[in-house]
Formats: sequence, structure tokens, C-alpha cells
Amino acid sequence: MSVDLALEAHELARGRTGREIPGVAVHRETYPHATVTTVRVLDERAETIMGKPRGTYVTIEAPAMRENNRQAHREIVRTVGAQLASLLRIGEDAQVLLVGLGNWHATPDSLGPKVVDYSLVTRHLYRYAPQELKGGMRPVCAIAPGVLGTTGIETSEIIRGLVEKIQPDLIIAIDALAAQNVNRIATTIQMADTGIQPGSGVGTMPRVGITRETMGTEVIAVGVPTVVRADTIAREALQHYLMRQATIANRPYQPPNREFVDEVVEGVLAPFGGHLMVTPKEIDELIENTARILAGGIAAALHRSLTAEEYCLYLQ
Amino acid sequence: MSVDLALEAHELARGRTGREIPGVAVHRETYPHATVTTVRVLDERAETIMGKPRGTYVTIEAPAMRENNRQAHREIVRTVGAQLASLLRIGEDAQVLLVGLGNWHATPDSLGPKVVDYSLVTRHLYRYAPQELKGGMRPVCAIAPGVLGTTGIETSEIIRGLVEKIQPDLIIAIDALAAQNVNRIATTIQMADTGIQPGSGVGTMPRVGITRETMGTEVIAVGVPTVVRADTIAREALQHYLMRQATIANRPYQPPNREFVDEVVEGVLAPFGGHLMVTPKEIDELIENTARILAGGIAAALHRSLTAEEYCLYLQ
Amino acid sequence: MSVDLALEAHELARGRTGREIPGVAVHRETYPHATVTTVRVLDERAETIMGKPRGTYVTIEAPAMRENNRQAHREIVRTVGAQLASLLRIGEDAQVLLVGLGNWHATPDSLGPKVVDYSLVTRHLYRYAPQELKGGMRPVCAIAPGVLGTTGIETSEIIRGLVEKIQPDLIIAIDALAAQNVNRIATTIQMADTGIQPGSGVGTMPRVGITRETMGTEVIAVGVPTVVRADTIAREALQHYLMRQATIANRPYQPPNREFVDEVVEGVLAPFGGHLMVTPKEIDELIENTARILAGGIAAALHRSLTAEEYCLYLQ
Amino acid sequence: MSVDLALEAHELARGRTGREIPGVAVHRETYPHATVTTVRVLDERAETIMGKPRGTYVTIEAPAMRENNRQAHREIVRTVGAQLASLLRIGEDAQVLLVGLGNWHATPDSLGPKVVDYSLVTRHLYRYAPQELKGGMRPVCAIAPGVLGTTGIETSEIIRGLVEKIQPDLIIAIDALAAQNVNRIATTIQMADTGIQPGSGVGTMPRVGITRETMGTEVIAVGVPTVVRADTIAREALQHYLMRQATIANRPYQPPNREFVDEVVEGVLAPFGGHLMVTPKEIDELIENTARILAGGIAAALHRSLTAEEYCLYLQ
Repeated sequence: MSVDLALEAHELARGRTGREIPGVAVHRETYPHATVTTVRVLDERAETIMGKPRGTYVTIEAPAMRENNRQAHREIVRTVGAQLASLLRIGEDAQVLLVGLGNWHATPDSLGPKVVDYSLVTRHLYRYAPQELKGGMRPVCAIAPGVLGTTGIETSEIIRGLVEKIQPDLIIAIDALAAQNVNRIATTIQMADTGIQPGSGVGTMPRVGITRETMGTEVIAVGVPTVVRADTIAREALQHYLMRQATIANRPYQPPNREFVDEVVEGVLAPFGGHLMVTPKEIDELIENTARILAGGIAAALHRSLTAEEYCLYLQ
Repeated sequence: MSVDLALEAHELARGRTGREIPGVAVHRETYPHATVTTVRVLDERAETIMGKPRGTYVTIEAPAMRENNRQAHREIVRTVGAQLASLLRIGEDAQVLLVGLGNWHATPDSLGPKVVDYSLVTRHLYRYAPQELKGGMRPVCAIAPGVLGTTGIETSEIIRGLVEKIQPDLIIAIDALAAQNVNRIATTIQMADTGIQPGSGVGTMPRVGITRETMGTEVIAVGVPTVVRADTIAREALQHYLMRQATIANRPYQPPNREFVDEVVEGVLAPFGGHLMVTPKEIDELIENTARILAGGIAAALHRSLTAEEYCLYLQ
Repeated sequence: MSVDLALEAHELARGRTGREIPGVAVHRETYPHATVTTVRVLDERAETIMGKPRGTYVTIEAPAMRENNRQAHREIVRTVGAQLASLLRIGEDAQVLLVGLGNWHATPDSLGPKVVDYSLVTRHLYRYAPQELKGGMRPVCAIAPGVLGTTGIETSEIIRGLVEKIQPDLIIAIDALAAQNVNRIATTIQMADTGIQPGSGVGTMPRVGITRETMGTEVIAVGVPTVVRADTIAREALQHYLMRQATIANRPYQPPNREFVDEVVEGVLAPFGGHLMVTPKEIDELIENTARILAGGIAAALHRSLTAEEYCLYLQ
Repeated sequence: MSVDLALEAHELARGRTGREIPGVAVHRETYPHATVTTVRVLDERAETIMGKPRGTYVTIEAPAMRENNRQAHREIVRTVGAQLASLLRIGEDAQVLLVGLGNWHATPDSLGPKVVDYSLVTRHLYRYAPQELKGGMRPVCAIAPGVLGTTGIETSEIIRGLVEKIQPDLIIAIDALAAQNVNRIATTIQMADTGIQPGSGVGTMPRVGITRETMGTEVIAVGVPTVVRADTIAREALQHYLMRQATIANRPYQPPNREFVDEVVEGVLAPFGGHLMVTPKEIDELIENTARILAGGIAAALHRSLTAEEYCLYLQ
């Protein structure tokens, strides 16, 4: 699981200054069932302000992902496909490696492996069954490398070894994310052409990033928040309470002492060592729907000859 | 999923009055890896105060259930077995029906079906393969009837129909619970000889209880909290904050205006209609361990000839 | 798992006599991707000859079920829906209970539970959410009662208890079948308005049928062969060998001594006590595809207002 | 899935000549619940006769693997551990990579991934949590790389890339096998220090071996037959029939014309293109038990400080 939240960072930054951030370009478009915000971090100063490397960050907000509405899901697949396609800078026949990060056996962390499972894989057909291919497709391969706790191997080592062998032109890494805000769970799809940054891992383990620098090839990260830290819910409630109180009393909102809040929140969540992460109880269904939407969108972006009927195949 | 929280009710009641409650007997014992609190609601007045029908409510607090400690799990199985046995009021050969409530396909709600899956079932052997039985066992059968949303049938109707056919002497109904407190998730086992009360269901659906009255036979409920309402986390944090503030300012704690808190909390959780229930991200593993512990404890209580080696068979 | 093979019985009977069987009406139709044979057993004499009770037996031969051809699967869903509809003798609002027989945890026997899992269930909506219903639907409920070995209860007892409670107008019982011929596995769908006959069970356990007589309501059985006795493969090979030899030698084929063949075949399969049943190694995928096709066909037959888009929803 | 059948090859060779084969050493030992045959192919001539490279081939025949007998399974784990240990030629601290070959989503082919899933992985602890290690353990890591059809990548490429990165001292590759004889399914464990040979793959795809030559490190293969070609059953039955006939007629057995037999067998299995592979209908349970036994035996061989209680942890 990773954390990547371009949009929040941007809102935060704007919130602080009330002005546009120099070196950051923001674009917003609205589609049926989806709002797309594209943030471009353009120079070094912007990198510092945003705390993110130069690159393009796309956030698709699609609350209908949480609903059982097949028509809406088709629209979202279309939007995912178009947005992902706009991030591609590879030739039509270039080879793509899908990497499904996360743990098969932990439902909220199984998004990446599930997407890989539902994805259309073609690379072997070029060699063994070319007659099954039609024009407008490209070689796509996929792996779900597992997690450190069950393989004993840093995920980046597994991928790096594979990349050296098969030399893909692009890696698309799919991962479940930790949301900064409970509302984002299973409603927001995030993409970035900067890959997955080092140190973005949840927990205390160090982690090597999956980026152009570490992999030697372009990396697009695709993620959907599936969990949130329980203390986020507690902190948000506290903040809302104090802000509302201030409004009513007609006095300026003063953020409470940070250490004091930490102490209170830790008290509530003590038995979990302060690290409790939670997920909605409907998580099985949310993962299922989200994985099918992502797999469809990825197929639509990569194989331009597929019809909507074909790339929506896995929607239920 | 049900809610059943004898212990909290009791703590709450004591907290309010600072005194023992008349008509309520409380007993606490400590075991390795488990604290057992037994609350007996003895008369009508106590029923009113506690908001629970007359009966015996056992709460086993065993935080080691969350750890991967096989030795501790064995101890907890033993305690579950002993406590459940103490609630039995049936003959040695009496027939028992295990009912695993909940939804196979939703991990946090799959505890009941999993316990049934791991349970030792013997009823058919009495008829078809008596040579496989040894002394000190009893006929046990089991069903996981599914949930209203996937069967279209009230669970109580399915069970009631079955009870009329096979006439068990006792029903043991196993269910995942909604905790009142995040700390209880996967650390607390609750049992009650009053069955599962009507109206205890999560959500807006009416629900017929599974009790002696509706089933025509004794019912023991066994539950473990696996989810918590997200607003509980928010409310707890708020309360802790205000209490701490009062302590520091050396003034009496005044609970905040309830409606105001409701408004704040609903604001934070609005996108989920205020009904978000959450579960720890390790829920798959928690359910697995808990189900194996319960299945072991139930087997130990029901078949007195089983050795610890046999009833701990499913622990990992 | 059950055995029900109207068609073979008929072929056998014709083979023996070379003539039509009195009291048996046979009708054959061809559709894209499916051949449908309807056998009607009309009177007592035909019952004796066919070894089957009076009723209508429909066999859909659809070899494309084994292929990953979504277009073909849609056609087969349509055929299943039409054939099943032709067996219905209930009013438009009559209530239907789907029963998915078999064992969730044994892949080749999980067809019934999977069909139930993919089926559209509506009965509860009539009571709790009528606004979600549209015209042309009917109340449908569903249960997967498990198997004797894991519940300890005769499946017929569970269903009978439920039927008495909810009083359905029709039961549709779905089950995996044991094929008489390896070619039928996952290529043939069988339906009969006579229900599932007693004694048709695989193995040595006695078994109560699920029929109008035992259930007190109409029963339609729907089955697909998923396993075959290994000795069937051995016997078929032997028979083919001897027939071919006879043809070449230009002498009449003489079936070999039955006891001698039994002895040979048992020798080959001795370690399995002569009871080895086998299934293709692709069984997971075959079950998945077949379950989706049956669930679609059943929905099409039961809810006349569903569009093809809707009842083909679960096809992949 | 691979084919590796040292024992049959040996029996066949002996059968042909009636004498010991020069350059082949055979040793047989009997244990409770297991017979172990060790075949050593010692020189080039023996390689030619046996059709297998020089090396040690261990076959453990343990019919109790098919039974639900936990005590027997413990004995088999012990034997697997001892036999595997006898093949190890690495230092006490040498690093081992477990490779679980096969397809998670096809039950009969899921043995390798399941063994990996149940295996004790320690490599990461040496770096991140050394306090959890005790003496007498070694770094073990594990991967289930998937299959060509779902990854689009030759399995050998994935493993080779990983081996270059992490430089293990030994690979243990676990795979489901295709049996030459139906009796061997889930009753026979095979090990060879020659790795998995090229061309041993089932089906028509070419396949690079996983051997010292291709991987640059020692490889031990561990396999258990889980499927058999359906034509094997047919051919065996035919052969038995003709042999018995010859015995009765008191004339020498003459094997039938091979092409004629092929034609007959293909006729019976035509709808499957002659390539039908079958597995027992209890395959889910067989895979589960076998995977737990192998994982236990591998842990026992690799970590000499584990107690039987510890390495039998996963038995049920």
C-alpha cells in the first residue's frame, strides 16, 4: 500500500496561500460520473512546495464507483482509459508491464493483484499464438509480485530483476492507497507518471520506490484509496468540532495544540499501537468493482482496437 | 451482524450510579490470556435498567486473539470451551444445531459461516457411520443460512423451518458483532444464553430475533466484534479531548451538546450517509484466527471426550 | 451431485429396439450453438421402459460452453431461458425458490451454490424495498443448503423445512451431475420437471429425492455434468476397441463378459476402491462459465421484463 | 505442471531387460506410512538408458496422504523433511529461494503457489526484525510467479531475473505433476536434485527448464502428481484386458498395434482434442492436504532448529 495524494497537497497548498502556486498547473474537467483534476508540477520550486517530484498527477473523482450502477461504471472505465492514454508516451507497439502491488490474502490490499488478474495479457501471444491477435493491440504482460512479509523479498528487487530480463517500455504499477480522508475510499482513482515514490510505504519498513530512477524505464502509478488511518477520522472530527465552535462563537479558529491532539488520539487507539488502519465493511465488493473498472480502463488505454464491449467485459 | 454488549451496558450503568445494580450479579475471573466477566440479569427491574432480558452474559477479553501466538490461542480455546460448557443445560446426548450467521462474501461478516466451516459435525454419523464415533460425543449439525440480501429470505425463517424438522435441543448462533468501542474488535468474545435479540440488527431492516421465544428451543449466542461505526471513533476522540481539557483546566467535564456533536460527526462522514462501518485492514487474518478459536472452543464444550490436541486441530 | 440422463436412456432404448418407444415423444430443435432434445415420458409403460417417472426431460447440447466465446455464451443463455420458461406452469407473480445443491468447497460440486450466488434474488424487495422493483418481475429467493458431510443434515430436510415456512410455488434445484460419458462434461445442460429422484445420489449414502412428492410443490431440476466415473472412460475404451476389432475382422461385435470387464477395470482403479470420479483439470473455469450461463438463463426465464443486457450481466 | 517420473522410467527399464541397469543405483527404505525409493543416475550411459540427466531422484510413496489421518500426515512430513535434507548440499546459513510453480486459479495446478503460501519465510527478518529469529534458521524467501497464460512471461524469465538480483544458494521449485498412472495422484512425492527439465511441460508450449544450467544455481525439484491424462486410464484398461485374456487363454501377451490403440482412444476422447487431463473430484481437499505436508517437510529440512510442533503447524 502506498500513499499518493496530489490533490490534497494542492488543496492544502492553495488553502495556505489563497493563491495559485507558481510552477503548478491545474486543470479540471467534468464528465458524466467523474470529475478529473490534472495537476502538473513543472519546476524545482514547485517540487519543494508540493513535496512531489515533477510530473503529471491525475485524480478522477467518481463517487459512483461505490454504487452498483453498471452504466456509471462503463462511463468511469471510459474516463480511466482516456486519462491513462493521455499519460502514455510510448509507441503503438511498445511493450507494457503491469505490476499489481499488494497482498492477495488481505482484502483491502488485494486491489493490485486483482487488477492484474482481470487484465488482458497478450505478450505471449506474439510468440506462441499470433493468429489470436488483431491489429491495434500491443504486447502486455503482468505480474503480482506479492509483499515483503510473504515473499521475504523487497518488491522492487523482484520487479527490477524482471525488468532487466524482459525490457518493457513502460511499467504501470497498480496499488491500493491509504487515503488522507475517509471520503476518498473507493471513490477516487489517482494516476501519476512519476511512479511510486520511495518512502511512501505504509508502516515502518523502508521501501525502495518504483520509479524511472530505480527501474530504468518509465513508470505510471495507478492507485485507489482503500483504507484510512483511524486517527484521521478522529482528527477530522476534532477539527470540525473546533471550527464549528469557533464559527458559532464568532471567533477565529485556532488549531489545537498538536501534541495534545496526538496524545488524545493515541489514547483512543492505544490498543493498536496508534497504527490502526480501517476500511469499510463492504470492502470485498468495493475491491471487486474497483479492480474491474481499473482493468477495463487499462485495457482501453493500451489496446486501441478494443471496443467498449470488449474492454468493459469484466464489469458486473 | 448483531450488537450485543452486556459488559458496556453494565459499565455504563455503574458509571452512572457509582453503585452495584440491584438484580445484577457480576463475577470476574482471570485466566492466562483471558479475563472473563459474567453478568447475570436476575429480575425484571434489572432487565429494565440493563435494557437486556434476564439471562447470563459472558464476556471473554483476550487481546492475544489479535496476535499470532499459537500457545495463547490454545489457552483461549480452553477458556471458550469452559465458559460455553458452563452455559449448557442439556443432556450428554442432546442434539445441538450450530448456526453461522452472516455473509460468506463479506469478510468482516463471514465469522459465523467460517466457524461452521471449521466445526466438527457429527449428527449424520449417528445414522450413517456410527463406527466413526467414540463415547463422549454428541450429535452436532450446522448451517450457514446466508443473509437476507442474498437469499431473499429472513434468516429466522430458514432456521425456524429447520428447527421444526430436526428438533435440536439447543441452538448455538455465531455472529460477527458491531463493537461499541474500537478496542473490542477481535479481542472480545461474547456469549449469552438469551439468544440474539430482535432489533439488534445493524442497518434499517427489521429483524426477528433468534431466541427461545421465536425458535421454540434454547439459544446461546456467541459473537465477536469485527466492525465499529466510524462515528464511534469520532465521538470517542471528541469525548476524550473534552475530558482531558476539563482535567487540565481543573473544571468539571461537561458533555457537549449531543445534537451539535451529531451534526459535526455527520459532516465528517456525510458521503457515507452517516452509516460508515469500518474494520481493521488485517480483517482477513483476524477472522481466520477468531473462527478457528471459536470452532475449537465450541467443539471442546460439546464433545467432552475430545482431547486438547483434537479440539485445537484447526489453530494455525 | 446427482445423475440424470434422460437422453442416454432414450438412445439406449432406441438402440436396443431400433424403433420408437411407445409412450415416449421426442422432439429435437437446433439453435445457434445449441441442440435441444425434449423427451416426454407419457405413460406408465414408458416409465418402466425408460426407468424414469412421467415428465418432460430437456437436454441442451452446447459444446461452446467449454470455449471462451462470450457471444456463444449469450446465445446459450437465451436458449436456457427459453427452454426453462417452457417448463414453467406458474402464474406471473408466483414465488420461486432456487436451491443450489452441492458443496462450496469442492470445485466440481460447487455448481449449484455458484448459480445461487450469481442469481438475481428479489423476494425481500417486495417487502423492504418495493421501489427497486419494476413490472414483469416475480419474487425469487435462493438457498445453498450445503451437503450432508458438512451440515450433518439431510439436504432434503433443510429444504422441506424452508418450503413449509415460505410456501414457494416452484422449486428450481440446480446440481452438478455425474456424466455417463466424458463428452458431456460442461457441454450439456439437463432440465426435468420431475425434480431430483431419490436414489440418484452418487456414493453409498441413501438420499431423499427433491420432488413434488417430498416437497409438496413443483420441482424443476437443472443440472450440468461436471464429473465422470473413471471406470466409464475405461469401459468406453474397451468397448470401442472390441467394436473396431470386430468391424475390421468383419464379424459381429460380441460384448465382452461383464464380470470379466468389471474385474479388469477394478484392477486398474483398485487404489480408489473402484469409486474414482474425475473431472477435467480446467474445472475451475468450466464451473465459473457454466454457473454464469445458468444464472443468466434462470433470470431470463423467471423475470420476463429483464433485457438481454440485464440477464447476461454475469457472463465474462 | 511438469512430468517427472524417475521411478516409472526405472521400472520400465528393468522390465525390458530383467536386470539391473549399469550406472543406476537404487535404494529402497520403508517408514511408517511411506516407502522411499532413491534412484541415482551415475553416468552418461545411464543417462541415455533412463532418459534423465545424472542426479538423485527420490520417490516417496505415501498413500495415507489421501486420507484424513493427521498422525500419518505428521509421519509423512518427517519423511519429506529427512529426504529433502539428504539432498541439500549447502551451508547452514545459505539462502534458499522457494518457487511455487503453477496457477492459483486452477485447483489441480495450484499446489506450488499453495506450498509457498504455507511456507515459513525468513529472509526479510534478517534485515528488518532479527530479534524474531532464533539460531538454527536460515534465510528463506519465496515466490509464486504465475503461469505464461496469465502473466504473458515465461516463468523461467521471471525466476532467472530474480535469481540474478538476490543470488540464492539453492532454488527449491515445487510443482504439480502429470502422473503416468492414476494411482500416483496425491499419493507420491517426487524430488530430484536435477531441477525441472526443459521440455517436460504439459501441452504444446515450449518451455525452458529450471535447472542449474539455466538458473546458475542449484535447483531441487519437488512435485506431486495431481492430474493424469484421460487416455492413460483408457490405455491401462485396454492393456490389462488383453493381458488377462492372454493369461486365461494360456498364450503369450502380445501388445496391440499402437496406432490402432491410439485411434480407438482418440475416438473416445475426441471432443477434447485427445488432450483431456483429469483429476479426482476431491482435488480441493487433496491439494490442501498435500500443500500443508510439503510446506511442513520443507520447513523441517531448511530450519534445523524447528521442532516437530512447529513444522507440523499447518497440518489439519
